[in-house]
Amino acid sequence: MINIQFAARSLRWAEYEAPLRAALDAHGLSYRMENYTPEAHLPPAEVDYVVYAPNSHLQDFTPYTRTKAVLNLWAGVEEIVHNPTLTQPLARMVDHGLTQGMIEWVVGHVMRLHLGMDHHLTGQDGIWRRHVPPLAEDRPVTILGLGALGAACGQALARLGFPVSGWSRSAKDVDGITACHGDAGLAQALDGAQVVVLLLPLTPATENVLNAEALARLAPGAFVLNPGRGPLIDDAALIAALDAGHVAHATLDVFREEPLPPDHPYWAHPGVTVTPHIASETRASSAARVIAENIRRGEAGAPFLHLVDRGAGY
Amino acid sequence: MINIQFAARSLRWAEYEAPLRAALDAHGLSYRMENYTPEAHLPPAEVDYVVYAPNSHLQDFTPYTRTKAVLNLWAGVEEIVHNPTLTQPLARMVDHGLTQGMIEWVVGHVMRLHLGMDHHLTGQDGIWRRHVPPLAEDRPVTILGLGALGAACGQALARLGFPVSGWSRSAKDVDGITACHGDAGLAQALDGAQVVVLLLPLTPATENVLNAEALARLAPGAFVLNPGRGPLIDDAALIAALDAGHVAHATLDVFREEPLPPDHPYWAHPGVTVTPHIASETRASSAARVIAENIRRGEAGAPFLHLVDRGAGY
Repeated sequence: MINIQFAARSLRWAEYEAPLRAALDAHGLSYRMENYTPEAHLPPAEVDYVVYAPNSHLQDFTPYTRTKAVLNLWAGVEEIVHNPTLTQPLARMVDHGLTQGMIEWVVGHVMRLHLGMDHHLTGQDGIWRRHVPPLAEDRPVTILGLGALGAACGQALARLGFPVSGWSRSAKDVDGITACHGDAGLAQALDGAQVVVLLLPLTPATENVLNAEALARLAPGAFVLNPGRGPLIDDAALIAALDAGHVAHATLDVFREEPLPPDHPYWAHPGVTVTPHIASETRASSAARVIAENIRRGEAGAPFLHLVDRGAGY
Repeated sequence: MINIQFAARSLRWAEYEAPLRAALDAHGLSYRMENYTPEAHLPPAEVDYVVYAPNSHLQDFTPYTRTKAVLNLWAGVEEIVHNPTLTQPLARMVDHGLTQGMIEWVVGHVMRLHLGMDHHLTGQDGIWRRHVPPLAEDRPVTILGLGALGAACGQALARLGFPVSGWSRSAKDVDGITACHGDAGLAQALDGAQVVVLLLPLTPATENVLNAEALARLAPGAFVLNPGRGPLIDDAALIAALDAGHVAHATLDVFREEPLPPDHPYWAHPGVTVTPHIASETRASSAARVIAENIRRGEAGAPFLHLVDRGAGY
């Protein structure tokens, strides 16, 4: 019998209990798992694993003398690596759901615009409208940012048939993507693009990268998608391009201020779809599988995945 | 200078002229191309290629003495193989756009439902709704039909992360898809499916394959997509399942009667999206590239693609 102490704020227990039990059961593990409150928890000296969020009430790990690992629910560990009582092996959350969710958001929202799906979603009125969209191969897409997320999204779109170009500040090489870099490369990547997806990190050099000059390079009727960072877009320039019809639609998941204020013009603009910063979000189901795999490894005497290097701090 | 006679009904010329010129120009070919009318056309004895639709006014090929090939715009040639005047090499249209368009329709419409996109499309009201969908890996999809279209669509969904099962009447083996067959296999493929996509041929054995019994096997809240053939669905059973909430949404591209009559209950049902038989449609751009490639081959002395075997009739 493995004793697992779940220690996070209470809402997380409601979200994680069923996925964790499913993932642990899938490994055939025999366990007792309970939620931590300051008043009620497993006897610390009997706990084998702590599933942990740094904002939990559990802060003193001293009595957890037989605990084999603390398995973090968060990717970031900067709030706990300096807890002097936490001497047990500590694993970060590395959730492929963050990348996978981003791929799904990008593919889904590109396909909605590419297929002109709204013609049908909003036209269920008995009129047979034979609007046939172009093929993906005739719809050039440009991804700004060729890090892990940009490369993965670009490759998913390329596999669906879109000609995909990508841009990054320094030179990169990504299979299936025509890569450009530097200032001259940015103009080249944007020229004539029918879809642009923003997946750059936010730095002083990338703020407002999609400004009036950049927008003017896109093909007339282009689509803009921003699941990256809000300040990558010059909002006034985007609204002007939408009003002029040069950009046909923008689907935006991130904003300078979040939640996006109810009176922000993006909400009411017919050419803008707002999604509430959901493109890349840890899913309980995939995170639970990461936790369960580490418990399986601990019980099998195999090395833990994603262990934090205390010296390096991550 | 290559002389190309385009011979189809007049609307096709408006649709095809620009894509054909673009595709021919891309090969650097020097040509004259005109549309055929009974009153005005290129001198038959000077024509090198005829781009042809069988319903054209051009029916007598006797004077086309130097024509190297007749390049059909249609996949089917049953209406012309028995034209005794057509002795020139004859090529069918093999347009990958038919398969590619189907893949795009299926991926796009599955992603719309999977992501719960309508929450956002219809909720642009200033309220930040943090609805995070499950990952594709937690959304089992079943494809009924594992022919060329079903296999291609299933594999595209599998590459996006969906667990994909497939069913066909006889046993098939498709990479990336868990394949079932026969009557017992149908029940197995449908049990617990959250998405079902119909891509079966229509035969007496497949008519009404998605009946009340089959629908009851799907997971509660399932999505049904039919880009295959209208009569694969028992319409009354589907509407009953939608009304009961067992099926959450149906996106339908094909119907027993097309255009779908304006008073058909599918149009008004909030759980149904009608698209007007557009999932698989020849696109002028990809068809033009097939034509241009054959003209390039003819000029280079290379063998034509997709030549019709007059003896076999296809």
